[in-house]
Amino acid sequence: MKIIGFGGSLRKGSYNLMLLNEFKRINQDLFDVEIADISGIPVYNQDLDSNQPESVTLLRERVKSSDGFVISTPEYDFSIPGFLKNTLDYLSRPVGMNPFSGKAGAIMSTSISMLGGSRAQYHLRQVLTYLDTRIVNKPEIFVTFANQKFDENGRLKDEMTTKFIRELGEKLRSEINKSSLT
Amino acid sequence: MKIIGFGGSLRKGSYNLMLLNEFKRINQDLFDVEIADISGIPVYNQDLDSNQPESVTLLRERVKSSDGFVISTPEYDFSIPGFLKNTLDYLSRPVGMNPFSGKAGAIMSTSISMLGGSRAQYHLRQVLTYLDTRIVNKPEIFVTFANQKFDENGRLKDEMTTKFIRELGEKLRSEINKSSLT
Amino acid sequence: MKIIGFGGSLRKGSYNLMLLNEFKRINQDLFDVEIADISGIPVYNQDLDSNQPESVTLLRERVKSSDGFVISTPEYDFSIPGFLKNTLDYLSRPVGMNPFSGKAGAIMSTSISMLGGSRAQYHLRQVLTYLDTRIVNKPEIFVTFANQKFDENGRLKDEMTTKFIRELGEKLRSEINKSSLT
Amino acid sequence: MKIIGFGGSLRKGSYNLMLLNEFKRINQDLFDVEIADISGIPVYNQDLDSNQPESVTLLRERVKSSDGFVISTPEYDFSIPGFLKNTLDYLSRPVGMNPFSGKAGAIMSTSISMLGGSRAQYHLRQVLTYLDTRIVNKPEIFVTFANQKFDENGRLKDEMTTKFIRELGEKLRSEINKSSLT
Repeated sequence: MKIIGFGGSLRKGSYNLMLLNEFKRINQDLFDVEIADISGIPVYNQDLDSNQPESVTLLRERVKSSDGFVISTPEYDFSIPGFLKNTLDYLSRPVGMNPFSGKAGAIMSTSISMLGGSRAQYHLRQVLTYLDTRIVNKPEIFVTFANQKFDENGRLKDEMTTKFIRELGEKLRSEINKSSLT
Repeated sequence: MKIIGFGGSLRKGSYNLMLLNEFKRINQDLFDVEIADISGIPVYNQDLDSNQPESVTLLRERVKSSDGFVISTPEYDFSIPGFLKNTLDYLSRPVGMNPFSGKAGAIMSTSISMLGGSRAQYHLRQVLTYLDTRIVNKPEIFVTFANQKFDENGRLKDEMTTKFIRELGEKLRSEINKSSLT
Repeated sequence: MKIIGFGGSLRKGSYNLMLLNEFKRINQDLFDVEIADISGIPVYNQDLDSNQPESVTLLRERVKSSDGFVISTPEYDFSIPGFLKNTLDYLSRPVGMNPFSGKAGAIMSTSISMLGGSRAQYHLRQVLTYLDTRIVNKPEIFVTFANQKFDENGRLKDEMTTKFIRELGEKLRSEINKSSLT
Repeated sequence: MKIIGFGGSLRKGSYNLMLLNEFKRINQDLFDVEIADISGIPVYNQDLDSNQPESVTLLRERVKSSDGFVISTPEYDFSIPGFLKNTLDYLSRPVGMNPFSGKAGAIMSTSISMLGGSRAQYHLRQVLTYLDTRIVNKPEIFVTFANQKFDENGRLKDEMTTKFIRELGEKLRSEINKSSLT
């Protein structure tokens, strides 16, 4: 089973990229997680729909051929970061090209604040409703005070969170199984 | 009184840009509205904070020197478009650089759908709470079925909406007056 | 297949009750829809958890024994009406008693305004995520200007909406089938 | 300066009632805070609009004659509790009777969870936009793990939170001063 992961910010040392890597490691017996590089996605402009850049068309194909997805979102200004929303906008345009349609996914977030990116997750759930996906309800994963939670190798120091990430992986796998039925 | 306007998408013929221009025309005796060109704002990357592009630093200065602002937002995938969120993210980073802080603003939206972009407005209100602004509560302006509402010169054909845009302008002016008091 | 419906307000002539009845009529070959009477549910008080009123325990049993559910929500003050939220609060308390867990559902709304209750639906989706349900993503049903849309027998005059309600029923049935798999 | 406070649940020992009392104590030199008893407010029914109960009409008068308000909301099922939303619904009905219109307010929340009721606050902000109020943006107060934060006399043990509550009180006072200007 192959899933695609994204959401980490463009900066080196992104905590959300670390969290994606931890999801991959903890659930490696369940999925092969490929983490997308979105650094080449330009700002969306509808006038260029007939000639989308290769970085977009290739990523769309990768999402389409995946069995499911996982997103770990930073929170910027109480919502989804522009760079991530722009990626989702681009992939789902023009109408009819949405590669997420019908797929199962899981979401997580981490931030250095006390709410761990939760506000971004609720906005993201609304976007993912539009994209006609099936998002795992629980457990919710909000890694708060991110700067204290990862060791120098990017591993989570907190066992409880590790356990929840495993549970999320198992729920996602079960959701993917259901969504593949007709 | 000088305010800055933005939110129109990058495509030519953007309905939200038309709506901004109508706001400007209808309230020209109240404000001088300068519409920002955000087409040169790249995708935000925190690693470049010490060396932000000139398009960003100039726009930040223009927001700072404005008495208030107006945003007309498209709705993409049930939320704020990535290109607009990215602009707000960039302007407000790094911590301490937010040029909107304490300013009064008004928001509007238009889309070709029956909800007129309303979902994006509620997410935008949450972002603007983070940015520590004062947004006019009412009237709310959602121009639905945008493709039928503007004439060939980009003017609103609907008198009721024109009236509401005037009311919004008056409320914004009164809010700017209040927010300038200490 | 038996589903439970609720959300109509306590007033006689509730448009959301009409909409529930239309959902029932249009999808009568798919489900037996029982519409719940919530007029006897008092305001929730946690101190009475050990002795909940019979109106609550009976309704909880009915939800539990249903194959799925449909909610048609009014919108009060840009969100879910208190009477409906109170019902959901009561049914899901104390911890462990949530009768919605794992069930599939559909949501709709109608109001006399131009947004048709949509704001309430997005808040309701968040609540239903907590309740660990599977809500149909599309089609979304927002019956705007409700006072013009129903005839004197409470039937929808609009064919398009009727068609969407049928589609929603079919999607709900398919979701119920999936959610019953393990 | 006189403000009205509400939001505590109906149970004895409500943490949100404790938080309201702490707001009152910490800011006693700024305001006289009267905490409303909402236990007598029945579930709203529009058919009774011409004959609202005295508990409602009296509370509406108290809100109207206040200079501002403070709400400390529990979070039930990822949103505003039904009992609190029902109170706001009732007070603001029928159209034209909204006693909050134009008033300044502050919001807080506490819960025994790690997010401290934050989800309820963002829904509440949307409701308070409808009610045409001016809500203080910052500081946000989310008292997490409520069961560990108050001593046996209901006092906050955490100095940082106490400091933020003072700051919130000062901001509210300044907002009330502004909102009283015309």
